[in-house]
Amino acid sequence: MTEILSDSEADRRLGFRAGWVRTGAVISREVELASFPRAIEVVNRVAELAEAADHHPDIDIRWRTLTFRLSTHSAGGLTAKDFDLAAQIDEVL
Amino acid sequence: MTEILSDSEADRRLGFRAGWVRTGAVISREVELASFPRAIEVVNRVAELAEAADHHPDIDIRWRTLTFRLSTHSAGGLTAKDFDLAAQIDEVL
Repeated sequence: MTEILSDSEADRRLGFRAGWVRTGAVISREVELASFPRAIEVVNRVAELAEAADHHPDIDIRWRTLTFRLSTHSAGGLTAKDFDLAAQIDEVL
Repeated sequence: MTEILSDSEADRRLGFRAGWVRTGAVISREVELASFPRAIEVVNRVAELAEAADHHPDIDIRWRTLTFRLSTHSAGGLTAKDFDLAAQIDEVL
């Protein structure tokens, strides 16, 4: 069972993730890539990480701008899984 | 210059595109794939078509459910480009 983080713990972890914002039980990051093909490459790399973690972010593709949104729906809140995957996404970007 | 289609012409063309709905100047299709990796494969195939057409749909990835949205922002409405790409997307699905 993955434990829901308190707001203060979520915000503490958010402090390490520049570019991410928290809106309630969701953290999100928007990023503009150099081109549409480059954005799709990033989607593919994030998709591999997501599948490996069995944790899938919502991804919005708007030409070369991507938005990733993470929340642990099965737990009903933010958990360590969200911040772990956010850190992995940051390594791709 | 790509010509904006009248509502009646847009709806006529929509009649050939099962699964697509029109909301004002946007047509969209939502589709659920068998798995997340399969959904990402579809995103890649649609991305190739989009880049070739230089016309990029908004794409929302929600685990194995994809939503495609098409509109010709440069023209300020729906044009033949939207329905042409919708037909190509349908061939992928």
